Amino acid sequence: MARTVIGVVGPGEGATAEDLRDAEIVGGLIAREGWSVLTGGVDSGVMHAALRGARDAGGLRIAVLPGRDARAASPAAEIVIVTGLGEARNNVIVLSSAALVVCGMSAGTASEVALALRGGKPVILVRPRAEVVAFFGSLGQPAPRIADRPEAVPGLLRDAGVR
Amino acid sequence: MARTVIGVVGPGEGATAEDLRDAEIVGGLIAREGWSVLTGGVDSGVMHAALRGARDAGGLRIAVLPGRDARAASPAAEIVIVTGLGEARNNVIVLSSAALVVCGMSAGTASEVALALRGGKPVILVRPRAEVVAFFGSLGQPAPRIADRPEAVPGLLRDAGVR
Amino acid sequence: MARTVIGVVGPGEGATAEDLRDAEIVGGLIAREGWSVLTGGVDSGVMHAALRGARDAGGLRIAVLPGRDARAASPAAEIVIVTGLGEARNNVIVLSSAALVVCGMSAGTASEVALALRGGKPVILVRPRAEVVAFFGSLGQPAPRIADRPEAVPGLLRDAGVR
Amino acid sequence: MARTVIGVVGPGEGATAEDLRDAEIVGGLIAREGWSVLTGGVDSGVMHAALRGARDAGGLRIAVLPGRDARAASPAAEIVIVTGLGEARNNVIVLSSAALVVCGMSAGTASEVALALRGGKPVILVRPRAEVVAFFGSLGQPAPRIADRPEAVPGLLRDAGVR
Repeated sequence: MARTVIGVVGPGEGATAEDLRDAEIVGGLIAREGWSVLTGGVDSGVMHAALRGARDAGGLRIAVLPGRDARAASPAAEIVIVTGLGEARNNVIVLSSAALVVCGMSAGTASEVALALRGGKPVILVRPRAEVVAFFGSLGQPAPRIADRPEAVPGLLRDAGVR
Repeated sequence: MARTVIGVVGPGEGATAEDLRDAEIVGGLIAREGWSVLTGGVDSGVMHAALRGARDAGGLRIAVLPGRDARAASPAAEIVIVTGLGEARNNVIVLSSAALVVCGMSAGTASEVALALRGGKPVILVRPRAEVVAFFGSLGQPAPRIADRPEAVPGLLRDAGVR
Repeated sequence: MARTVIGVVGPGEGATAEDLRDAEIVGGLIAREGWSVLTGGVDSGVMHAALRGARDAGGLRIAVLPGRDARAASPAAEIVIVTGLGEARNNVIVLSSAALVVCGMSAGTASEVALALRGGKPVILVRPRAEVVAFFGSLGQPAPRIADRPEAVPGLLRDAGVR
Repeated sequence: MARTVIGVVGPGEGATAEDLRDAEIVGGLIAREGWSVLTGGVDSGVMHAALRGARDAGGLRIAVLPGRDARAASPAAEIVIVTGLGEARNNVIVLSSAALVVCGMSAGTASEVALALRGGKPVILVRPRAEVVAFFGSLGQPAPRIADRPEAVPGLLRDAGVR
C-alpha cells in the first residue's frame, strides 16, 4: 500500500517569515497524520521549512529537485528525486501529490497551483492574500480551499478526501 | 540566424468567442512581422486560432503538443513538436518563446504565464480581466504588459525588445 | 541525511524468469544494506520484482511512473512519484539513483543504461548477454561492471563508491 | 498539412570526421526531399553538421536543445526549441521525428536509438559498427535499417514509409 503524499509549495528565497512559520507547522501536522511531505526540495524557503517541520515530527520527506545535483537538496530531505527538468518538475510535484498545500505565493508557486487546479487536485491556500483567492477562484475550476491558520490544514485535507 | 518565435497561449475548449478572435488576429499580426507563432498546438481554442491566423498571413507555425500523437495537432500547424510530457510541456512553450501573448485565461494558461514571469520572459495580456492583472502584478516580477486590443500586440512586443 | 537510492531497471512484460528472479534477489539485498530501491514503478516485470524483493526485506521502495495515474504503480511500491513524462521519466530514474543495477535488457532498459553511462553513474549488469557487454563497452565511457550472479551486486556497488 | 520531420542524431564532441561528413550529406539529402531536419541542436558534432547540410540545401532546420539558453543552438538552426529538460529532451527528439537517422554512436545517441525502437519509430544506422548492429538487433524490436553510405538514406526512409 503506497503512502499518502501531500505536496507543500511556496516561495523559495522570497518567502516571508509567516510563510516559513506556516510551512514548518504544516509539515509537522502532515507528518503527525502519518502522511509524507513532498516539496520542490531545495534548501531554501517554504520547501526547506516544510521538510524540516516534517522531519522534526518524524515524518517521511521527499524532495523533487529541478536541477541535476542531489546536493542542492534541503538537509531535511530524506528521499531526493533528481529530475533535471528545471521548472517542468513542477508538474511532477503536482502529479505525485494527493493534494497541494500552499504557503505564500510566487511565480513558481502560481504555476504549481494552476497545474493542480487543471489536474483536479485539491488545493489548500494557507492565509492567502485577497488577489490570490480572487484569481484562482476565477479559472472555472473548483475553487481552492482556504485555511485561515496552518492548524486547519489537516482537517481541510480530510474534507478534500485525503486518507 | 534563428527565427524569432512568439508564443500565443490561452484556453482550449473553454475559450470565448473574443479569445478566439483576438488569437486569430494576433497570430496574423505576428506572422506579418516576420515572426513565427508557437502554441500548445492542439486542434482547439486559442492554440488553433492563433495558428490559423498565422497560416492565413503566410507565417511559420509551430505546435508543441502535450501528448505523444502528432495527429492531435491543429491542421494549421506547420511544424509539430511532440513532447509526450503532458502539462510539463508548458515550460517548453515558455522557454522556446521570445515573449508570450495571452488571449483569455484558464488554469493551464495561468501556469504558462507564471512560468514566463518566473523566467523573466515578457508577457502581454490581451484584454485581461481585472483579477488577472491584479494577481500577476502581485508576484514580485515585472508586471505583464496590457494590450487593450489585439492590434496593439506587435508594438508592445517591440517595446519589450523583440526583434 | 538523505537515503542512498539504487535504481533497478530491466524489462517489463518481456522479462525472463531469470530476470525476475535476479531482480527480486537484488531488491532484497539492496534493502538489507539499508539502501532504498527505485524502479520505473509499474506493476510488471523487473520493476515489480525488485520492489517486491525490497518490500519483503523491509526496505524502502520508490516507484517513478511514466504515466499520470498513481494506480498503475506496483502494489509493492511505498512511495509513488507520478511523472506524466512518458519515457522521458527514464532520465529521472537515472538522475535519482546513486547507481543502476540492470537485470535483463529491452529497448527501454537500454535507454536507461545509456543515460546512466552518459551521466557518469555506475552501472552493474547482472548476467548480461555478450552483445550487451560489447555494445556498452564500446561507447567511450567507463564500462559497466558485470555481476555473474545477483549476490555479487552489493559488493560491486560498494566497489563503485556507494555508501 | 504539417511538414515531414526527420531526426538526425549522433555524437557531439566525440564525432569522427566520417560521422560529420555523413551527417552533413544526410542533412542535405533530407532537405532536398522537401523534409525538415531535426537534431539535438547544439553547436557541435553531428547535430551541427546535419543542420549545416540541410541549410546549405535550403531545407528547414529544427534544433531541440537540452538546456535553457537559446544561444547554445547551432548557428545553422532555423527554429530553436528550448526544452530545459536536460537529456530527457532525447525523447522529444524521438517523438517529434517520423524516423531517426544515426551517424556514429555515443551514450547519448544510444539512448535516442533505444527510445525510437521502443516507440516503434523507423531507425536507419549509417555505416554502423558491428557491435551496434548486434546490440540493437537483439532487443526484440524490428531491427534498424542499415545504410552502407549516406546517399542510401532517402531511399531507406521511403522504404520505411516516410512521405
